[in-house]
Amino acid sequence: MAGPDPAVAQLRSAVRPGLTAEDRPVLVACSGGADSLALAAAVAFEAPRAGVPAGAVTVDHGLQTGSAERARQTAAVLRDLGLAPVLVVAVDVGAGGGPEGAARTARYAALARAAAEQDARVALGHTLDDQAETVLLGLGRGSGPRSVAGMVEHRRTGGTTWWRPLLGVRRTTTRAACAAQDLAVWDDPWNDDPAYTRVRLRTEVLPLLEQVLGGGVAPALARTAALLRADVDALDDLAAGRLAALSCDDGLPAAPVAELPAALRTRVLRGWLRAGGVPDLQAVHLDAVDALLVRWRGQGRVDLPGGAGVVRVSGTLNLVPVRNGGGPPPAPHDREEPDA
Amino acid sequence: MAGPDPAVAQLRSAVRPGLTAEDRPVLVACSGGADSLALAAAVAFEAPRAGVPAGAVTVDHGLQTGSAERARQTAAVLRDLGLAPVLVVAVDVGAGGGPEGAARTARYAALARAAAEQDARVALGHTLDDQAETVLLGLGRGSGPRSVAGMVEHRRTGGTTWWRPLLGVRRTTTRAACAAQDLAVWDDPWNDDPAYTRVRLRTEVLPLLEQVLGGGVAPALARTAALLRADVDALDDLAAGRLAALSCDDGLPAAPVAELPAALRTRVLRGWLRAGGVPDLQAVHLDAVDALLVRWRGQGRVDLPGGAGVVRVSGTLNLVPVRNGGGPPPAPHDREEPDA
Repeated sequence: MAGPDPAVAQLRSAVRPGLTAEDRPVLVACSGGADSLALAAAVAFEAPRAGVPAGAVTVDHGLQTGSAERARQTAAVLRDLGLAPVLVVAVDVGAGGGPEGAARTARYAALARAAAEQDARVALGHTLDDQAETVLLGLGRGSGPRSVAGMVEHRRTGGTTWWRPLLGVRRTTTRAACAAQDLAVWDDPWNDDPAYTRVRLRTEVLPLLEQVLGGGVAPALARTAALLRADVDALDDLAAGRLAALSCDDGLPAAPVAELPAALRTRVLRGWLRAGGVPDLQAVHLDAVDALLVRWRGQGRVDLPGGAGVVRVSGTLNLVPVRNGGGPPPAPHDREEPDA
Repeated sequence: MAGPDPAVAQLRSAVRPGLTAEDRPVLVACSGGADSLALAAAVAFEAPRAGVPAGAVTVDHGLQTGSAERARQTAAVLRDLGLAPVLVVAVDVGAGGGPEGAARTARYAALARAAAEQDARVALGHTLDDQAETVLLGLGRGSGPRSVAGMVEHRRTGGTTWWRPLLGVRRTTTRAACAAQDLAVWDDPWNDDPAYTRVRLRTEVLPLLEQVLGGGVAPALARTAALLRADVDALDDLAAGRLAALSCDDGLPAAPVAELPAALRTRVLRGWLRAGGVPDLQAVHLDAVDALLVRWRGQGRVDLPGGAGVVRVSGTLNLVPVRNGGGPPPAPHDREEPDA
């Protein structure tokens, strides 16, 4: 008997290790597009073999004509694959953050609710090509190594576990796997709409980079992201350990923190200030607090967002919260934001 | 009295801290282009105030008609700026690594020789825009965080100190500074030749990225590079410390290295194998040696480039060099290459 099509086999291999890593049920988030449909088919095949219950969710954003019918069709395909339960969730997309951002926010909230109700983890169909786009986006933002490090296979935020088993799989492979299994793919017209930054990265920037650099750019971006992830994970862990060892009720002792290399020092400071409830920390704030350590010349209080401040007294950094420090009350726009 | 033009002032501020950091003479490497000419003018102005002797070198690559005359003209401008000595060095460009690479190799070798003769450091005119191109090139290569971290302001290789004070300055600023000082800029036609990868990154990819991401891309890339540099510097230093503490004549003890986070573990292994003389280490080799630590199931010798190998014996990794290990002699292409 011939084995499965190579693309189908690659998808199944990609989901197997993560699927068997825990026995919690899986809900595949499926738009009906090639990536998430190929993922759904692979999970549907492997889950019974791994003894893991596997269902699916499809979200009706209500933004395009016929989207409810479209969601029903996708749900029917998912049920045919043997997934259960298959949920169709209609969401109200708000107006904040542009249409792309608002749809994403509503979708992730709906997926998190469905996962909580089913006590399941959510499987997402992001591919190596999505990863490459994410790395380029993070790079263009200049917001630091963590954002260039891209998406991670397993991530827990706000009680939900997100699982992205296809980060090493090309988009061409998911499409081939759908074709090999006669799965009708829905091509979201938004995926080709140049109004969206991500679409232009995919259809214009990455092809040009491929041409100029001689190919292999998307895998190279994904490889770099994986190496960066290992680096930032190690530094974050090391910094958390130093912070736990060094911080005390009196504050943060300046001398041992000042001795740390910059990459650890700024992470220790960020962790200390966040634990103290300081919101919206920017590089400029961290720089000013860092100067109390490494460019100390008797300077005064460093003001921080939310009305807090840091002073250096007797070789120790003290965080002065606004309530005790007698500073002005926080302005409405300074209120603490939840971490992303 | 009016102060200098803002662009001129920015150039002078950029060179001041590095110039005064040591009193070793400076040789400005100057092609006659806007970046290196603006750098030469800023160094010529600041060096006497800092009490640092400052000269310049211009390299005649002999690849374009009239290049010798061009180099003489540049040297005259540099002497007019008050720099001394001003050296004109003619080089023979080899054929290896393409015209771009061969010219660069010959140029850096000539600059290193001139610096050694003058016991000077070499100032290079790379700007923030060059940095952005370097980061994109490193990213496209996928060779890891160090190559995405871009160029550093101070770097010592093979006895030469390279100083790049303009990594935070835009190319538009160097051009404006030249115009404000009536310095005639030579525009190298090679800088616009789309046969070169870097030229296409500059003239096609970066402008498109700017357009798609809404501007600010080059500074964002440079900012990311600086943060990445801090990260990789810290990890490299930490790994070197662990390696020094752990390695002994018997080899590398497996248990304490296995406990390190991946980012440190692979750096410790790389440092240990390089110190043992293993050339041309690739990710695939490091992975195989790492498996002896973290996926140990009694596997045998891991073969490495150059004919060496690593075995795990009694909880210790042993590097078996080819001479003692009885393996085949190294093939000619396996000979150790100097580090870049």
